[in-house]
Amino acid sequence: MKNLKVIAFDADDTLFINETYFAETEEKFCALMGDYLSKQGISQQLFKVEIDNLKIYGYGIKGYILSMIEAAMSISNNTIPIEIIEKIIQYGKELTEKPIVLLEGVEETLEALHGKYKLVVATKGDLLDQRRKLHNSGLGRYFHHIEVMSDKQQVDYSDLIKRLEITPGEFLMIGNSLKSDVLPVLEIGGFAIHIPFHTTWAHEKIDHKIVHENFKNYDKISAVLNFLD
Amino acid sequence: MKNLKVIAFDADDTLFINETYFAETEEKFCALMGDYLSKQGISQQLFKVEIDNLKIYGYGIKGYILSMIEAAMSISNNTIPIEIIEKIIQYGKELTEKPIVLLEGVEETLEALHGKYKLVVATKGDLLDQRRKLHNSGLGRYFHHIEVMSDKQQVDYSDLIKRLEITPGEFLMIGNSLKSDVLPVLEIGGFAIHIPFHTTWAHEKIDHKIVHENFKNYDKISAVLNFLD
Repeated sequence: MKNLKVIAFDADDTLFINETYFAETEEKFCALMGDYLSKQGISQQLFKVEIDNLKIYGYGIKGYILSMIEAAMSISNNTIPIEIIEKIIQYGKELTEKPIVLLEGVEETLEALHGKYKLVVATKGDLLDQRRKLHNSGLGRYFHHIEVMSDKQQVDYSDLIKRLEITPGEFLMIGNSLKSDVLPVLEIGGFAIHIPFHTTWAHEKIDHKIVHENFKNYDKISAVLNFLD
Repeated sequence: MKNLKVIAFDADDTLFINETYFAETEEKFCALMGDYLSKQGISQQLFKVEIDNLKIYGYGIKGYILSMIEAAMSISNNTIPIEIIEKIIQYGKELTEKPIVLLEGVEETLEALHGKYKLVVATKGDLLDQRRKLHNSGLGRYFHHIEVMSDKQQVDYSDLIKRLEITPGEFLMIGNSLKSDVLPVLEIGGFAIHIPFHTTWAHEKIDHKIVHENFKNYDKISAVLNFLD
């Protein structure tokens, strides 16, 4: 690790709470659509629409709002009252106004690493929303810049590393998703640390254990400091 | 200009056609809403909703679809049939599938500059959509990377230049919008070249002439080569 130059942090559910807010919004969406289908059926249909739309819309709140609207239309067979569409847009906009709640140990970790490495945020949400969150979190001063990625697959990390003008062995990614923050980074020869969050979106789940010499798993982000020492 | 290190190109209506497609979609939206209001009235209402939403959604197709849906609801006083919402979403998705038509002289200009300067794309659309367009355009190989900006104001260019680790005097921006690609760059001490496109979105228009020692205006992008020689 002595060659390490850049440490990239995932933002949502690594630096601050995010999935909790999406889960709350999904609860409200299910309540809104309760006349048409069971809660489980609604969630399944929404998830299906979201995944179908990922290749067109990518990640983030705007695509999520559009997917809720489409799911409401298909679940109701186009009989949904227009006021429900209005509610969905309102819930979506409210998502952009949620308070920023930092996760435990984040600030002290960034404070300790700042100045020793180039710190960047690497996230796949909406650019504007991620900038807003980083600004409101007060963490902006620790980071060199934000890298908004259209996806977090191997090719996206290879592009990122090329853009940063470093080698994979000089790169460490820290995040809550084994699928997005860990596996693709290890596959291109980088280092990765997993800090789990209690709630994980179904799309980010994987069903196997990772054992790799460039990989660590910690309960809290501050443990990264011991690892780097 | 001998210190120039990075040349940034706006994408939409600088490298390839874009506003033409949005204008076509707006025509179709106006036809869809023709029972409720005059064409001019519909365009005005849509523009108002778009501008109101910019601070929440930023630029790009997803925000545009959401703004069309909101405008349809407000224009119809929430009496719009759900099938119209379905049509709007379809029109929006079709926007992501439009063919990429390069503007005159773009390829020869990039070919000539490639290898002499670091070339980047600096755009404020949706990241995924801009990546798709650049990939399909075949121009990807000329560029070091894409910078998707949440806006193109002075602070956004200052951030960009910091991220590129250069000074303003080492930076040239080329684009079709005086408001977004030229003025803020000149104000922070960079160089800017304006290549007008025949159609300009109302939000990008300015009503004064620019005279500045770091500024040039050309009809065609290939004239940039003479300027840099």
